[in-house]
Amino acid sequence: MRIVLIGRGKMGTLIRETASAAGDEIEAAFGRDDLDQLGRLGKVADVVMDFSRPAALPEIAAYVRRTGTPLLSGTTGYTEAERERLFALGSAVPVLWSANYSLGVAVLARALRVIAPVLGQDFDIEITETHHNQKADAPSGTAKLLLEAMDPQHRLRPVYGREGSVGRREKNEVGIHALRGGTVAGTHTVHFFGPDEELELTHRAASRRIFVNGALHMAHLLPGRPNGVYDLQKILFGE
Amino acid sequence: MRIVLIGRGKMGTLIRETASAAGDEIEAAFGRDDLDQLGRLGKVADVVMDFSRPAALPEIAAYVRRTGTPLLSGTTGYTEAERERLFALGSAVPVLWSANYSLGVAVLARALRVIAPVLGQDFDIEITETHHNQKADAPSGTAKLLLEAMDPQHRLRPVYGREGSVGRREKNEVGIHALRGGTVAGTHTVHFFGPDEELELTHRAASRRIFVNGALHMAHLLPGRPNGVYDLQKILFGE
Amino acid sequence: MRIVLIGRGKMGTLIRETASAAGDEIEAAFGRDDLDQLGRLGKVADVVMDFSRPAALPEIAAYVRRTGTPLLSGTTGYTEAERERLFALGSAVPVLWSANYSLGVAVLARALRVIAPVLGQDFDIEITETHHNQKADAPSGTAKLLLEAMDPQHRLRPVYGREGSVGRREKNEVGIHALRGGTVAGTHTVHFFGPDEELELTHRAASRRIFVNGALHMAHLLPGRPNGVYDLQKILFGE
Amino acid sequence: MRIVLIGRGKMGTLIRETASAAGDEIEAAFGRDDLDQLGRLGKVADVVMDFSRPAALPEIAAYVRRTGTPLLSGTTGYTEAERERLFALGSAVPVLWSANYSLGVAVLARALRVIAPVLGQDFDIEITETHHNQKADAPSGTAKLLLEAMDPQHRLRPVYGREGSVGRREKNEVGIHALRGGTVAGTHTVHFFGPDEELELTHRAASRRIFVNGALHMAHLLPGRPNGVYDLQKILFGE
Repeated sequence: MRIVLIGRGKMGTLIRETASAAGDEIEAAFGRDDLDQLGRLGKVADVVMDFSRPAALPEIAAYVRRTGTPLLSGTTGYTEAERERLFALGSAVPVLWSANYSLGVAVLARALRVIAPVLGQDFDIEITETHHNQKADAPSGTAKLLLEAMDPQHRLRPVYGREGSVGRREKNEVGIHALRGGTVAGTHTVHFFGPDEELELTHRAASRRIFVNGALHMAHLLPGRPNGVYDLQKILFGE
Repeated sequence: MRIVLIGRGKMGTLIRETASAAGDEIEAAFGRDDLDQLGRLGKVADVVMDFSRPAALPEIAAYVRRTGTPLLSGTTGYTEAERERLFALGSAVPVLWSANYSLGVAVLARALRVIAPVLGQDFDIEITETHHNQKADAPSGTAKLLLEAMDPQHRLRPVYGREGSVGRREKNEVGIHALRGGTVAGTHTVHFFGPDEELELTHRAASRRIFVNGALHMAHLLPGRPNGVYDLQKILFGE
Repeated sequence: MRIVLIGRGKMGTLIRETASAAGDEIEAAFGRDDLDQLGRLGKVADVVMDFSRPAALPEIAAYVRRTGTPLLSGTTGYTEAERERLFALGSAVPVLWSANYSLGVAVLARALRVIAPVLGQDFDIEITETHHNQKADAPSGTAKLLLEAMDPQHRLRPVYGREGSVGRREKNEVGIHALRGGTVAGTHTVHFFGPDEELELTHRAASRRIFVNGALHMAHLLPGRPNGVYDLQKILFGE
Repeated sequence: MRIVLIGRGKMGTLIRETASAAGDEIEAAFGRDDLDQLGRLGKVADVVMDFSRPAALPEIAAYVRRTGTPLLSGTTGYTEAERERLFALGSAVPVLWSANYSLGVAVLARALRVIAPVLGQDFDIEITETHHNQKADAPSGTAKLLLEAMDPQHRLRPVYGREGSVGRREKNEVGIHALRGGTVAGTHTVHFFGPDEELELTHRAASRRIFVNGALHMAHLLPGRPNGVYDLQKILFGE
C-alpha cells in the first residue's frame, strides 16, 4: 500500500517507522512547514493518512478532492464546522475518522454492543481499567467508549467506588474501577456477572504502538470502498 | 410463565426447583411412568420444556400439535429420523432445541463469531479450558463449540500441547489447552494475541445450574415467536 | 480423625456433613439445648471443633481441661475477657482460633506477607474484591485481612475509587476496589504493578464450603502439637 | 550507586541507558576490546556488574580481589571449573550470580516455595506460560524455574497437553501449557485448584527491560553484605 502521510508528531513518526517494516510505502510526507507542497502533488498513493492539526484541513481537503485519494484521519480538536467540512469529503472519497485506532478496542466495543442487550436483564456489569501511575484522570476515555457501546441510551448509573455500608447493588448500577500502578499501557476488563456464571472480556495494550498498527490495518481496508464517511465500526463490521 | 415439564431426571428436577423460585409455574410435570397422561391434557401452559428421552417424542409431538404449545427441548440422543420428526414440529409451533442451554456460553460463541473474522489476519488464537480433576476427556465440548463459532470452515489446525523444540508458531495453528484440577465447574478462555495487544474472553461457570437458568431464560423468549425451528443463536440474536 | 463438635448452626451442620464424607468421625455433637451433657463426656476424640456462641465457653473450657482434647474454635463475638479465658486454655492443650478458616486465603495472606516487603519500594499495590450483588458493605473482611498481611504498620493509604482529575497516583496509595455482581461467592486479587512487570495473586472461592474444608484441614494439623495458642499462620507455617 | 560495567552486549547497553535515568552512575565500562584496561583501574565503584563472556572472568576476578568491589554477574556459559572460580570470589567480596534478574519472577518463585508445601496435599497444580509466536521451544526456562521452586524433589510428573480420553487427572500430575501468540513478552501463571477454591499467581512481563531493572535493583542490595556467594533468593529473602 502506498501512503501520503500528513503529520510529523508522535503518531506520524511511528507510522513512518512501522509502515516500511510492514511493507507499506510512504510516497510523500508533510509537516507543518512544508504542507503547502501538497498542492503540487498528483495522485501518488492509495490513501492519505492524516495525524496533524485541524489547521491542515483546507490543504488536505483540496488534495483529496483533486486526486480522489481516500482519507484516513486521526486528527482531533476540530470545531463543529471543521468536522462538517471533513465529513463533506465523503461525497468525493471514502473518509475514515476515529480518535482511537486500536483494532482490539474497536473489536471489543463491537462484541459488547452485540452481547450487552442479550445479557442485560440477568447480568450485572462492572468495568475495571488499569493504567500507569502517572495518569492523572479517571476513568479512561476507552472505558467510557466501552460503556457507551453497551449502554447507548445511558440507562446505567456509573458508580466509581464502594466503601462502607453502601447497601445492596442496584440493578442499574455499573461499577467503574480505575486501577493505577507501574507502567501499565492500558488494560480494560468488562465483567458480566450473572446467576452462577460470569463473562469477562479483557483488552490489554502492551504499548501505544497499537494505535499505529490499527491505523495501518484500517488504511488497508479503505481503498475501493464506496464514497462516504466511515467510523471503525462501519469499516470493520459494515454498519 | 406457565410450564409443562417433561422429564424427572437431574435437569427436570432442577428446573422444577428453580422455576418456582423465579416466579414461573409448573402446571404439569410428567416422567417415564405417567407420560401417557399427557394425552389427556389440554393447553395449560405457555411452553413445554422437555428434558427426557428420545422415546418420549411421539407423546410430546402429539401434545404440541394438538394444543399449539411452543416446545423447548434439551433431550439428546435422537436418531436422524427422530431429529427430523422433532424439527418437523416447527411447522406447527416455535421449536427450540439445544444440547447446551448456558446463556453465557451462547453469548460468548456469538461474540467470537462476530470478532474472529475481523481479527483473524493479524491475531493468533489460543483456547484454554479448565475442569475438575475427575473429567476424563479433553478438550471439553464447549471448547469445541467455541472453536466452531470462530472457525466454521475448519481452516485452523488444533494443537493440543507444545513441548521441546516445536519451532515457531504457524499462522493457522490454534492452541487448545486443557487444564484439570480441583472442583472447577468449567472455565473457558479464548485468547487473541495480536501485535502489542491482546483480547481475552472468559466464561466461568460456578455450577451446572447455569443450564437450568439458561433454559428458563430461553423459555421466556419462545412464546409469540413465529413457527419454526430455533437454536440458541437464532432465539437470542435473530439469526 | 475423631471429632467432638460443638454448634448446630450453619458451620456445625456443614462440618457434620463434610466430615463423614472425608472419612472423619463425629463422635459426639452438642448444641445450645444439650451442651450440659458435655460435662459427662470423657475423652473420645482427637479434637474439639467449636463453632457455637461465646456463652458456650465455660462448658467447653471445662471439657478441654478435664480431657486434654485439643481445641479448634471458630466462634466469634467474644469479649476481651472471654478471649483471654479461651487463650488461657493454651497452657493445657493446643488451641487454634480463627475467624476465617479458608486455607486458600491463609496461604495467600502468607505469600503477601513474604513478598510485599521485597516489592514494596518499586511496586504499586491495588486490590480488587468481587462479591455477589446482595453484599451490602465494602470492602470485604478478607480484603482487609490481605491488606493487613502486606502492610501491618498501616503505612499505606487506602483509596476506594478514582474519578475525575485525581492527579497522579501517590507512592503510598493502595487502591481497594469492590466489584459487586451476580452470585459470586468471593474473589480477591492483589496486584503489584512495577516497572515493566506485574504480579497478580488471585483467590477464588466457589462456595462457603471452603471454610468447612479449611477447618477440617486445620483440625488434622492440631493433635500432637505442643500446647499453646495458634492462629492459621502459625499452624500452617510454624510462626 | 557507582557502577563498573563489564559487557557491551544487549544487557550492558540497556544497563548503561537505564542506570543514568535511575540516578546511578557508570564510573567505567569495558567491552571485549578494552577489558585489559581494567587491570589499571582502582576502586572507583560500589559494585561491578558483569554481563559479558566467560573469557572475561580472569580479569574480572583479579580486579575484584584487588579492589574488594562486590560483584554482580549475569554472565552465562561457564564451565564447571570457571563457575567454581567465580564462586571462590565469595571469600573476598559478596558475589551475586543469576541467569535471570527479573525481580518479579524471583519473588513469585519465593511465594511458590512458601505456599506449595502447604497446599500440596489438597490442591492440583497447573502452569500456563505465554510467549510471542516466534519462540521456538517450550516450556520456557522461567516455567521450569517456577516448577523447581514448588517441587524441588521432582515428585510431580509434567504433562504437556491433554487430548482425547486421557482419564482422570492423577494426583501427582502437573499440567504445563505453552501458549504462543502475538508479541507477548512473557506471562506465567501458576494455578492451584483445590476443593471449592483456587489460587492463581501470575507474572506478566511487558518487556525484557525487567532484567535490567532487576539487576540494578539487586546491585543496590549487594554492597555492605557479608562476603559470600548469593543467589536471588538469598539476596532478597536472606536464605
